[in-house]
Amino acid sequence: MTSDREHICEQLQDLLKQISMVLSYILSKVLEDSALTFHQVYVMKIIGAKTDVNLTSLCKELNLSKGAMSLTVNRLEEEGYVKKCENPSDRRNRNIVLTPKGEEVLNSTREKLREAFDKLTKDLTIEELENIKNSLMRLNETMCGAMKQYHVYQEQK
Amino acid sequence: MTSDREHICEQLQDLLKQISMVLSYILSKVLEDSALTFHQVYVMKIIGAKTDVNLTSLCKELNLSKGAMSLTVNRLEEEGYVKKCENPSDRRNRNIVLTPKGEEVLNSTREKLREAFDKLTKDLTIEELENIKNSLMRLNETMCGAMKQYHVYQEQK
Repeated sequence: MTSDREHICEQLQDLLKQISMVLSYILSKVLEDSALTFHQVYVMKIIGAKTDVNLTSLCKELNLSKGAMSLTVNRLEEEGYVKKCENPSDRRNRNIVLTPKGEEVLNSTREKLREAFDKLTKDLTIEELENIKNSLMRLNETMCGAMKQYHVYQEQK
Repeated sequence: MTSDREHICEQLQDLLKQISMVLSYILSKVLEDSALTFHQVYVMKIIGAKTDVNLTSLCKELNLSKGAMSLTVNRLEEEGYVKKCENPSDRRNRNIVLTPKGEEVLNSTREKLREAFDKLTKDLTIEELENIKNSLMRLNETMCGAMKQYHVYQEQK
């Protein structure tokens, strides 16, 4: 039983790696002439979807160091896609918001990605897509849960 | 209906990105003191599992350029984990094989990864793991199929 489980876990690792490589390849082609990288799109989507986003909350959400996150946000700010503004209820942390220029470039890049992903998954029925989504949600939620425990464990050490 | 599909596709994109970020974070911690990166483990597993592996077949399997693949393989050769040897039936392409030292370091790193992945997914039942695996296999096979068509399209252009 344990060895079955281990075998499936190893297959999962390989599948995740394979999918991420295929995806990187496709994304590098699709976004070749785009102003944004896939990582920037992802960060900007989070900034656009929530209120009171700041550097600290982004680091937490993306499990990235403040250094790495600052690089991405500063780059987006230089390009005029996001701006920082005062948060009256928290003077120590400035909020990060999309600019109109940022929203525009985000929307057109999302559209490109949507089309590419649509082509990539056109052989799947909507039920299959739903199943895959539910599986990935379950995996993601389990991994995030385990990671939180990992953080607690690290802090206790 | 189309907009449902688009919505799911966008969720899938985000989930794949999230999972890959959590996984990178965990892997960077787990493999901190290891001789191998996750990418090297993946490449060495392919080299160990098949016969007649050469640079060309690796590039094809991993969708990487010859330049990128050479870097990885040369690095592994320098460390003494793989070696190149003549292929009597194909003199132009030398085969790549694991050395005993390579096999040893691969096995111990796989063991580490297996343990980490086991902890990460311990809240999932074996049925849930099976479902996730099947979903990922279906997604991977669809994406690889679509990518092959993409290659043909690119070559025809």
